[in-house]
Formats: sequence, structure tokens, C-alpha cells
Amino acid sequence: MPFHHFIHDSAGWQTLGDETLFANPHLEVHRATVTSPTRAEPFEWTVTHRKGAVVIVPMTKSGDFLLVRQERVAIRAAIWEFPAGQIDDHEEPEAIRATALRELQEESGHELAAGGELLSLGHFFPSVGFTDEHSHLVLARPVVPSSLGAAHDSTEAIVECRAFSPAEFQQMIARGEINDANTLAAYARLVALGLW
Amino acid sequence: MPFHHFIHDSAGWQTLGDETLFANPHLEVHRATVTSPTRAEPFEWTVTHRKGAVVIVPMTKSGDFLLVRQERVAIRAAIWEFPAGQIDDHEEPEAIRATALRELQEESGHELAAGGELLSLGHFFPSVGFTDEHSHLVLARPVVPSSLGAAHDSTEAIVECRAFSPAEFQQMIARGEINDANTLAAYARLVALGLW
Repeated sequence: MPFHHFIHDSAGWQTLGDETLFANPHLEVHRATVTSPTRAEPFEWTVTHRKGAVVIVPMTKSGDFLLVRQERVAIRAAIWEFPAGQIDDHEEPEAIRATALRELQEESGHELAAGGELLSLGHFFPSVGFTDEHSHLVLARPVVPSSLGAAHDSTEAIVECRAFSPAEFQQMIARGEINDANTLAAYARLVALGLW
Repeated sequence: MPFHHFIHDSAGWQTLGDETLFANPHLEVHRATVTSPTRAEPFEWTVTHRKGAVVIVPMTKSGDFLLVRQERVAIRAAIWEFPAGQIDDHEEPEAIRATALRELQEESGHELAAGGELLSLGHFFPSVGFTDEHSHLVLARPVVPSSLGAAHDSTEAIVECRAFSPAEFQQMIARGEINDANTLAAYARLVALGLW
């Protein structure tokens, strides 16, 4: 596995072959040959490898949520979403906390308040049909403006950062103005865990 | 655009180049050269093209939700998720309804009851950092067992289909047992729209 060790052959699965069809610094396309719990005959599947990622849910002292508005080339649009970033050093779970704090700082210009907590909301898989990409969801509460300000990566275009009340945030989901999996999955976990 | 016309150059965006780096029947990797509303200098981005998809949320007459348990090679696991499938004939929005009904039938062995409704919950983007894949979310209520039964695609491995109460479903999200973006995004929209 080129990027991470999060995906294993769990019980009943066996990876018999793994051929790299395409690779660049952002993703790798592999042809995996596997058997599964219900399929004893080897079969092939195209799997796109990506680094693991961390999505940070920044909650302010007053209970608002910070969203960043970011230009996303793949969909040719700027959208409101929770800050997120890839895990660069490939070591999970140790790197999750560091990546969460880094992206909070860089993308939103905020930091965890003294005495604040990072709370895991679990992980999710963005598109299980074709990629092993997985994203850890982390609630940070409360967050406060950082004296360092934001430090946007030169390859990113974060246009704005703003606090939204829970009611505003929910309306944006209902109206389809929030439409990325990171932010929707984080909201789903917050609601289901009674943290909303 | 090889698969669909869902993504356009909206205001302020301009696609100057689009080179195919890899292609097979499941995905294409492109190098897009673009300008964006905040970046007048052309820059490159790796974009993975995928067909559009439809996620169907089957609600029974008693208010339970149907989930299918499907083996997913990319993560080497079988997971509980809402039925979903790709839009084969590339025509949106016309094909959304047909795809929803097809996947409901094929994956869960159910169909929309006479007088039932299909309700759009909007769409979402599974991973805006690297793919233009987009998924339409459609609530079907109520659904009833189909006399045709299920008809699983030979390339899929759907192990089981079961109804879950809203309370069970929510607990599975809270415990991290539901961890795919399709199902989490659908739940997020149901909750935000007051349909939960």
C-alpha cells in the first residue's frame, strides 16, 4: 500500500495481486485482484489510492461552527465546508490530532482554546465504490482566533472563513448549499451522537 | 467531459486545458488547466472523472429504512449502506428517477408502492479535492417488496438487505457502523429537511 495502512485484508478477504496502472503525487490507480468472503474465485477491481484525511469541526465558545469557503477545481466552484487536509506523514492514528490542529490553524486561522478538547467523531469513506480514501472527523471545542492568523497553502484558494449558527448551518444543508461529503458526514455524526 | 455534463465552468472559472492521463471503463484521470475567480494565472489540477450516481433512501410503510450489506473491494469490507448505482446513460436529470428505481429493485428487491413518491434530497460531492463524482439523493416512500425480487449485478456482492428502525439506524451512525458518505449524506439531508 503506497500511502497508508488503514485498509487491511480483514477476515475473509485476500489480496492476490495489486498492479499500479497510474501514479502521480496525488493519487494512484491500482488493479487489485482479490477474493472476498462470498467470492472464492479471484476477481479484479479498480481501486484509487489516496492518502487518509482529517476533517476538523471547529466550534466556537458561543456554539457556532466555522466554515471555510474554498475554490474546488474538480467541481469548478467555491463551496462552504469544514477545514480538512490530508495526513502527510502516513502514520495513523498518531498523526490525526496533529493534522487536525494544523488544518484548523492554516485554513481557519483559529486554534484550540486552552483547556479545549479534540473529540473523535469516527471516520468515513467518501466513495467506497472506487477509492480507499478515508477521512477522520474531529470536533474541536472551543476554538479561538489564533495570534498566528491563517496560513493558506499556496495550492489552495480559501476565499473566506465565517462562523455560522447551528440554525444557519442546518438551513444551508437543507437548501443544498452545503454539499460536500466531509461536512455532511460530520453533521451526521454530530446529530447521531447527540452533540448537535 | 467524458461521462457527464454536470460540472461546468461557472462564473469566474475557465478551463483552458484538459489532458487525459489515464482512462478505463470505471474512471478517467485528467490534468485540468484552469483559472478561477481568485486565480487569474492558469494552474493545473488532477481531476478524476466518474459517472454521476444516485443514492436511494427506501422507507417502508412503517417508517423503517432499508439498508443493503455490500462487499466493497476498495476498503476490503462489507458495509451497511443505502442502495446506490451509477447513471449509465449520462442524461441528467432525466435519468435520476429511472436509476433510483432500478437500484431500488436490483439491490433491495423492493419497489415504490402504488401512490408512493420519489423526493429529491439534492446532491452531494463525495470528495471535492480530487473527483467530480456527484451523487443525487432520492427518498422513496413507501417501498414494498417487489414480486420480481432482487437482481444483483454479477459484479456486485450484496450479502443482505434488512429494514432498520430510525433509532437503530441512528445508533449505527453514532457507533461508526455506518461509515460511507452516501448513507451519511442522505441522513444529514433527511435530518436538516425535517424528514427524519
